[in-house]
Amino acid sequence: MLKYDEALRTVEDEFGKIKLEAEEIELCDALNWTLAEDIFADVNLPPFNNSSVDGIAVKFNETTRKWKIVGEISAGNYSEVKLNENSAVMIMTGAKIPNYCDTVIPLEEYELKNGSAKLNDTAVIKPGMNIRLKGSDVKEGELVLKKGVQLNPTNIAAAASCGKSRLKVFNKLKLVVLATGDELIKVEEKPTGDKIRLSNNYGICAAINGLNQHATNLGFVNDDRNVFKNKIENLLSSGVDVLITTGGVSVGKYDFVKEALEEIGVKRKFHKANIKPGKPVYLGIYEKDEKIIPVIGLPGNPVSSMVGFYVFIKPAIEKLYNQESAVTISAVLQDDLKKNDSKRHFLRGILYKEKNEWKVTAKLSQSSGNIVEMSRANCLIVIEERKLNPAKGEAVECIQI
Amino acid sequence: MLKYDEALRTVEDEFGKIKLEAEEIELCDALNWTLAEDIFADVNLPPFNNSSVDGIAVKFNETTRKWKIVGEISAGNYSEVKLNENSAVMIMTGAKIPNYCDTVIPLEEYELKNGSAKLNDTAVIKPGMNIRLKGSDVKEGELVLKKGVQLNPTNIAAAASCGKSRLKVFNKLKLVVLATGDELIKVEEKPTGDKIRLSNNYGICAAINGLNQHATNLGFVNDDRNVFKNKIENLLSSGVDVLITTGGVSVGKYDFVKEALEEIGVKRKFHKANIKPGKPVYLGIYEKDEKIIPVIGLPGNPVSSMVGFYVFIKPAIEKLYNQESAVTISAVLQDDLKKNDSKRHFLRGILYKEKNEWKVTAKLSQSSGNIVEMSRANCLIVIEERKLNPAKGEAVECIQI
Repeated sequence: MLKYDEALRTVEDEFGKIKLEAEEIELCDALNWTLAEDIFADVNLPPFNNSSVDGIAVKFNETTRKWKIVGEISAGNYSEVKLNENSAVMIMTGAKIPNYCDTVIPLEEYELKNGSAKLNDTAVIKPGMNIRLKGSDVKEGELVLKKGVQLNPTNIAAAASCGKSRLKVFNKLKLVVLATGDELIKVEEKPTGDKIRLSNNYGICAAINGLNQHATNLGFVNDDRNVFKNKIENLLSSGVDVLITTGGVSVGKYDFVKEALEEIGVKRKFHKANIKPGKPVYLGIYEKDEKIIPVIGLPGNPVSSMVGFYVFIKPAIEKLYNQESAVTISAVLQDDLKKNDSKRHFLRGILYKEKNEWKVTAKLSQSSGNIVEMSRANCLIVIEERKLNPAKGEAVECIQI
Repeated sequence: MLKYDEALRTVEDEFGKIKLEAEEIELCDALNWTLAEDIFADVNLPPFNNSSVDGIAVKFNETTRKWKIVGEISAGNYSEVKLNENSAVMIMTGAKIPNYCDTVIPLEEYELKNGSAKLNDTAVIKPGMNIRLKGSDVKEGELVLKKGVQLNPTNIAAAASCGKSRLKVFNKLKLVVLATGDELIKVEEKPTGDKIRLSNNYGICAAINGLNQHATNLGFVNDDRNVFKNKIENLLSSGVDVLITTGGVSVGKYDFVKEALEEIGVKRKFHKANIKPGKPVYLGIYEKDEKIIPVIGLPGNPVSSMVGFYVFIKPAIEKLYNQESAVTISAVLQDDLKKNDSKRHFLRGILYKEKNEWKVTAKLSQSSGNIVEMSRANCLIVIEERKLNPAKGEAVECIQI
């Protein structure tokens, strides 16, 4: 059975074979997409020397303390003014500085009287002050945003400054989620007898959307091998990028998903990873017409399937797009926990900050069927393979969910 | 001039007067919306006692080590079986446990031979093992999700388990963003002379979308008081919830935004907060037909306007929806910084984790015009009012952006 790290690497490697395409979108829609081009400054930024304050623009000299005001320049309203060392021009924040000037004196530092500005006695003037130099943010031709960046609001503002009203971005992955199980009924129905409502797909699809990818919730099929195979065969030739199933991947005779997938040409990469919950996770690959489709079989328990998404699929998608995974948070464990096996455990925890210190409690039911309990958690507490019975007060790493 | 905390409280108070409406959306679309109803379990979860493993279901007793297999139950396929203390039924994960049974023995613990299961010599059996009891996740009638929660993927899975295919959520705010300035040109144009491209709106609208709110980028108007007033008057009666302007809020004579707003009935709450960058921030309120519309004037510099959004508007929106603000990260400052005033500073920083410790560098140009430099930052370093010249090695709080 693969260790977690080996299984994750395998998932990442197979996802890494998906070919991302570039597409063009409007700048306004670009939040959280991954940039598929380098963006360079097409002009200097700022494009001209400009004032960072309201005041007067002068040519610095050690002795002059009074200037005749010979004009006014506001942002966007530059006009040439004839100046000498005894004259100045009123200038507003963002306005272009006349070539003759090298210094802006802010309005708190002088008094205006009879068309002249006279420095206050306490004023301290330094040559070059309050001027934002042309190109001081970035010079024409320099790299502004690197291909591969996941675009945040300030990236988008920076792209606007470089004239990019449309951006090349990598396409979203199309992930489809199909549940299996005779026990499943629709959300709209009320469970009777031994039925339960479908919930996995909703959680997984929301998590996919949260990664700015494209999710399709395909509902469920019953435990009928032929129905399942037909459905999957159609899906695999419908342009999907990743296929996620839940349920039917354990070892019982009703766990037909692995065999059914392989009967239609999926090649197994692994079955089972040494983790808890979610051990019977399956990864296969379907190749057709040079397209490679990872097929992930997650266990049917709602908690196991969500954990499987967070610890395998999410990091593999982030790696495919070259994004850094969110860092884990180190927190002080608030409970004594039981662990007497060599699996990696992902416990549901509640992470909180108290007096500047991160703490985490695992006082939640840890049953892999308990999705309501899981919905109260905000993290997965990682207990590594070799660690046994982590104790209250120890530091643990937490994955925020 | 208001201190930051006072200004923030005022913004929060005024946003707090916005009346949120409830609307109904599909469960599949519910990620990041704020729940406007309590959700209770309409059934016990799980709805019946079920097996957490594949194995055999028996009635526990101290002495029996061998059972005759008299049937099989898989998940979703329950049928009554007649059992006694010497017989057992094969049972699959998730399958309903017959009333007669109280214990499930996992398949690793016994050997199947001639239609009987015989316990391995090493097997340790405890009464009640491997049974998930009806209602052990949540009991019928209990609260599952509280009104006000911002829905994450596991919340959505939990809502599915409770039969909620549609959810009542609070509506998104409609925020519109309008820039002012004679210096502005469209992103598509190339700046010449003393013009610069519009960038603020793009960054602010992306940040609004990132909060799951509704942003409209209205572009810009030139510094023409009447054009601006007409535009704003129309906007204020168009059903917007919040109006954001950028530029024109300082003290120069081109900074007409405050006066123009007040001429059309906006009531000033404050102008200027003791912060850097972004001091000349303005808050006014427009009341009409019992609707209260906050009008925020942010400074025109791209960095100042983004900072203004992150330190005033974002927390006020989060508070309106009763969401917890993201906690700040304490990090070790990597540079000596200059600060010799009583303002609260929000420096652009790069936050990173090294050897399990958060560090932050402010080695970026801190000019409020430099949006490209800001786009390299991932946090705002908060330097409080009374703090002067924070030194390398000191702990500082960082707001992730």
